Amino acid sequence: MKDLALITDLYELTMAACYYDHQMFDRAAFSLFVRDYPPRRRYFVAAGLEDALCYLRDLRFAPDDLEYLDRLQFFKKDFLSYLEGFRFSGDVQAIPEGRLFFVNEPVLEVEAPLIEAQLVETFLINAVNLQTMIATKASRCFQAAGERQLVDFSLRRAQGTEAGLKVARASYIGGFIGTSNVLAGKTFGLPVFGTMAHSFITSFDREIEAFRAFAHTFPHNTVLLVDTYDTVSGASKAARIGKEMAERGESLKGVRLDSGNIAQLSKRVRQVLVQAGLGDATIFASGAIDEDKILRVVRRGGDIDAFGVGTKMGVSADAPYLDMAYKMVEYAQRPALKLSPGKATWAGKKQVFRSQTPAGKLKKDVIGLRDDRLPGEPLLQKVMSRGTIAARMPSLPEVRRRFLDEFAKLDERYKVIEGCGPFFPVSFSPRLRRLQAKAALTVTRRELGES
Amino acid sequence: MKDLALITDLYELTMAACYYDHQMFDRAAFSLFVRDYPPRRRYFVAAGLEDALCYLRDLRFAPDDLEYLDRLQFFKKDFLSYLEGFRFSGDVQAIPEGRLFFVNEPVLEVEAPLIEAQLVETFLINAVNLQTMIATKASRCFQAAGERQLVDFSLRRAQGTEAGLKVARASYIGGFIGTSNVLAGKTFGLPVFGTMAHSFITSFDREIEAFRAFAHTFPHNTVLLVDTYDTVSGASKAARIGKEMAERGESLKGVRLDSGNIAQLSKRVRQVLVQAGLGDATIFASGAIDEDKILRVVRRGGDIDAFGVGTKMGVSADAPYLDMAYKMVEYAQRPALKLSPGKATWAGKKQVFRSQTPAGKLKKDVIGLRDDRLPGEPLLQKVMSRGTIAARMPSLPEVRRRFLDEFAKLDERYKVIEGCGPFFPVSFSPRLRRLQAKAALTVTRRELGES
Repeated sequence: MKDLALITDLYELTMAACYYDHQMFDRAAFSLFVRDYPPRRRYFVAAGLEDALCYLRDLRFAPDDLEYLDRLQFFKKDFLSYLEGFRFSGDVQAIPEGRLFFVNEPVLEVEAPLIEAQLVETFLINAVNLQTMIATKASRCFQAAGERQLVDFSLRRAQGTEAGLKVARASYIGGFIGTSNVLAGKTFGLPVFGTMAHSFITSFDREIEAFRAFAHTFPHNTVLLVDTYDTVSGASKAARIGKEMAERGESLKGVRLDSGNIAQLSKRVRQVLVQAGLGDATIFASGAIDEDKILRVVRRGGDIDAFGVGTKMGVSADAPYLDMAYKMVEYAQRPALKLSPGKATWAGKKQVFRSQTPAGKLKKDVIGLRDDRLPGEPLLQKVMSRGTIAARMPSLPEVRRRFLDEFAKLDERYKVIEGCGPFFPVSFSPRLRRLQAKAALTVTRRELGES
Repeated sequence: MKDLALITDLYELTMAACYYDHQMFDRAAFSLFVRDYPPRRRYFVAAGLEDALCYLRDLRFAPDDLEYLDRLQFFKKDFLSYLEGFRFSGDVQAIPEGRLFFVNEPVLEVEAPLIEAQLVETFLINAVNLQTMIATKASRCFQAAGERQLVDFSLRRAQGTEAGLKVARASYIGGFIGTSNVLAGKTFGLPVFGTMAHSFITSFDREIEAFRAFAHTFPHNTVLLVDTYDTVSGASKAARIGKEMAERGESLKGVRLDSGNIAQLSKRVRQVLVQAGLGDATIFASGAIDEDKILRVVRRGGDIDAFGVGTKMGVSADAPYLDMAYKMVEYAQRPALKLSPGKATWAGKKQVFRSQTPAGKLKKDVIGLRDDRLPGEPLLQKVMSRGTIAARMPSLPEVRRRFLDEFAKLDERYKVIEGCGPFFPVSFSPRLRRLQAKAALTVTRRELGES
């Protein structure tokens, strides 16, 4: 996307202008973290880091950006000249994509001269919030679906086309096998899926003619949508086509159900298929699918091989945002924090230390200061050094593998679909707690003692 | 955005390939409409048409798109050659942006050769769904806020950067006065707003120093964020700065509250400001604002001049998607419809006729066939003819004006914020009902009589 530099709230620029005016060029550290769990979530799946790093690497103000800022008449010429040469020169530590993390844990930390660290706030939240939210939602569908396969069908009602693209990527990380989104297939190399809509059926004089025409054009990729008029009657026609295909040495790949009582209908459709000798055909279900509907269909004995999961996953409908924030934790080597009710922050640059049980399950996390030396695996890794990407970017299948491996280690009670499970144990290290207490006291005395 | 042609579900292309194979080039008509009201909504604000039309006008398959499709090994060479020369050559009728519409009313209708009309489905839903949903949500905030001003603060947690841009545009249509989103300011000419974050305060040794520095750099745009440590104490410091500014012949523009009990705090902050002789300073509130919170703050006598409305509006948090669909209503001059439970569609090309009361209020709508001649104003206008945009694109302030005018004509009972109001009266014309009954009967006999 062009114009990335202006994907920012105006206040990032007014603050920067004021810092510039006052020659405040010391280094600052900011933490990106989630303040609270959305309903029914007890973990997050990290995603969006790649976008964040590419943005930081490529960030430039184009001449027409600067002209626009000049026209606003907010900014002095010397500051605009500074922006002309602006580059992000900072360091970034982050939890790799595909790993699990929890509330208050920094998923990313930026250290850079104050203006640089501040200016990038809006984009960093935007990028990591969206993909983390979606990967987390997708993982809930994955958990509900067991061994059944999931395909992203969300593009049409995703919040924009870019969101559709990012949703395809993030849901793949969260356990999906692919997407209907062709551009996502091209951009990320994801497997793409899709055959026909209801309009395909209605554009032929008869349903069976539509089925026959499709089988003729796509003998190796025929999944027939059977609910346009009546699901069971549609399945019978699909079975007839399946037999015709078999006679030609081809095979019907499957049928798709898109409305009605999926659990019940799928059983009747399976009977129809089996009776026609089409035991290998898969039954694909779509239509208002999310983790709750998957769970319901599975519990009622629905005979479904794969789900097309659309809108409700693609906008994370029951929790369409995370309470993700990017907060200053240090400036000029002083700890920084805010005390606003409900939004107080923890001072200091951090590291997260993750311990496992002897059986290899996730046991607990400790959030410590970055220079703490604590037991467990440190999760944040140096991913950018002086504005240059410092780590190899993993492939998307690698990220997905990383998610699958760690998700298997997370106890089932943190993955419940309905209601709320317990919190995964996360504590703060003694040194971090001492720093926080001291910094809060200093600030309270200074700011509330005086006025 | 490049690669627009691949912003599509794979099934649009497989259907198109099959139509191509079977030489199905007759004209089809599709309707874009909303199937049902989301919770607490009783109207929609049309938005997103401009994007839809630009997409249709510019749609091309680039060489690397075609190479990608070829690599998928789904498509035959002759179909890929067809795509190489693909242009949208159809006609479009639409309800103009900014106007109100209701469930089942086509907000847009496409008429084109079958493949063209089908291929554009995914993008059209995506574009109109997002902006209509957001303009509608914004209008609810506007309704709750009365004469108080609203600014879009949603970019950071919008679902992607493109969504952030579109939200700024759509919320402006829905009654907002501007945005914090700088790129939206540049792209759409929207007024931009913003001054400082909490990190600005914490990067100075003392809060008052931060305030003083900002007033120094922006003497004409000083809105001080007062809740970093304690809101009332922050307001006192802001008042001190306001007095210093007054001595220099400048004036404090206002303060911003971002946490705590906004209604109660705003009254205390106003006292502080008035006592300091700063009666003209505005009080700006932000933090988890939506129509419900605005209403609560207003009812509790909160003394707020303007609200910064972020995440909850920007993702339409209580209703993050519309049940918007794009359905074939005619092919080769035959009416088309589907009967899937809960998703049945109305056949035929349509027009919507809107009547007003003698007092100039909106009275009722009738959905008719396009060639019906009924009383009332026909809402759908020809906006594209043979692939060329056929109407002048209105400016964004014109669209916003159109919304404000029509919204004022909509009775208050359809605009309730809490709970659900009655449905606005929308009926179907006798000719449309006859066509539908006949088409449904034909289909039922043909498809369910035979199998």
